[in-house]
Amino acid sequence: LARKPSIFEIIVIGNEILSGAVLDTNSNWLADRLYKLGVHLRRITIVRDDLKEISSAIRDAVKRGAEWIITSGGLGPTFDDKTLQGVSIATKKPIALNKEAVEMLKERYEKLKEMGVIESAELTEARLKMARLPRGAKPLRNREGSAPGVILKYRKTWIACLPGVPRELKDIFMNELEPLIRDRVTALKRRRLWITVRGVPESTLSPYIDEVLSKHQKVYIKSHPQGIEDGISKVVLEILSEDVSEQNADEAVKKAGIDLIDILKSLGAKEITRSEEKPL
Amino acid sequence: LARKPSIFEIIVIGNEILSGAVLDTNSNWLADRLYKLGVHLRRITIVRDDLKEISSAIRDAVKRGAEWIITSGGLGPTFDDKTLQGVSIATKKPIALNKEAVEMLKERYEKLKEMGVIESAELTEARLKMARLPRGAKPLRNREGSAPGVILKYRKTWIACLPGVPRELKDIFMNELEPLIRDRVTALKRRRLWITVRGVPESTLSPYIDEVLSKHQKVYIKSHPQGIEDGISKVVLEILSEDVSEQNADEAVKKAGIDLIDILKSLGAKEITRSEEKPL
Repeated sequence: LARKPSIFEIIVIGNEILSGAVLDTNSNWLADRLYKLGVHLRRITIVRDDLKEISSAIRDAVKRGAEWIITSGGLGPTFDDKTLQGVSIATKKPIALNKEAVEMLKERYEKLKEMGVIESAELTEARLKMARLPRGAKPLRNREGSAPGVILKYRKTWIACLPGVPRELKDIFMNELEPLIRDRVTALKRRRLWITVRGVPESTLSPYIDEVLSKHQKVYIKSHPQGIEDGISKVVLEILSEDVSEQNADEAVKKAGIDLIDILKSLGAKEITRSEEKPL
Repeated sequence: LARKPSIFEIIVIGNEILSGAVLDTNSNWLADRLYKLGVHLRRITIVRDDLKEISSAIRDAVKRGAEWIITSGGLGPTFDDKTLQGVSIATKKPIALNKEAVEMLKERYEKLKEMGVIESAELTEARLKMARLPRGAKPLRNREGSAPGVILKYRKTWIACLPGVPRELKDIFMNELEPLIRDRVTALKRRRLWITVRGVPESTLSPYIDEVLSKHQKVYIKSHPQGIEDGISKVVLEILSEDVSEQNADEAVKKAGIDLIDILKSLGAKEITRSEEKPL
């Protein structure tokens, strides 16, 4: 029963994130998918397009015992797309042209030529770069762009590399990677309940949350203060539970929710809303 | 002249980010501010509300030689607000009640009582928790919420802790932290230019970017593919330069921009837009 969900880490690669030019939404999207899959996302690391940074981030995640590492970004045709080279350094698997990936690129550029997007479907050096994978890696078909995703196993860790363009990342994750993950992980069922309360500030609530937590050992409660609106404080409370059984998780969350709502009423809450969808 | 900008790392703390419940926008906002300050943001790490995770993330950043670590989140009154305890473990500075922080909280809760938000301004244990800082730390006034920010020096590294509520984080950063940073860092002047091009895909552009880069050694060019719209590929090119002199950075970016636009025209671009504000 004390089954532990598989440990995941995400590594986001791109100078544009660290310079503040681009807001990274990929890791949030992936985090939500992994949460729903029932696995444990332990850490997200965002590094520059730099071989030392990429390879050390991967090595550190492997050392920490990550069972899965998902990277985002750095798979494209330009000089600063360095993810696969970074993976190659971290895993000591040399880069080589991958036939299956070459076929994917050939199909892709022929299609783009037919569509009139490009003039020549020739596999130039820049295009072939996207088919140079660490030895033993498998390409993952990209239906929304050119660079294939990549998956490989290094010791006990699966490393999956996805492109940084959100549409492409989502396509490969949903159609190619998620089925592979499902078959290979230990997962738990999760239930989440949200309670929004107006009129009881977080610092007043805090000891009562501890009380609910010690009574309901199977849940975790997180409070998200939302500041003060029209002189009334607003807090969103998130009640979570995970279990091998969905029913157990569901019951734990509901029971804790009932107790919490009773307490909020006794504390003079002005408004209480209960929701299964996140109100944030 | 080869002055190196000070190295920063950001550590974001919060289960809600790793479960996908909340999109972290704090690190993007901070990254943009640090970019404009002219310092070097090397890495962002996002960890759970877990003492081992928080303290090891801080220790690792110190070991990597970060001159500044900015944390976001985990300063509130609840049991899972663990940032200061994590800092205490990482720096071996014991937690103690900080008089200045107690004064800030007293003022804050008296004001909230006057406003009718709370019934009692009593400094309960949960409220006092926010004034328990690692020894030697200074509180940073929070005008938008209760938990003060915190700054301390550990060996050669400044560690600044900000609350996770975006409005509070921004207030403390702008009014309290940024002036302290400005006085203590080595910074460069930065200029950035954006060129949006339609009709030349990234894989075609790639070798020409390399060409511009080898001619203009003082710039860095990053391409952001935007996919295909109405059968035409769209790419956003970012040209960056940094220098002790703003004029030098400005000239470098402009000259590279002129060459790049000439090349884009010769490659048959259907539309080229030049902008100093980010078009993403």
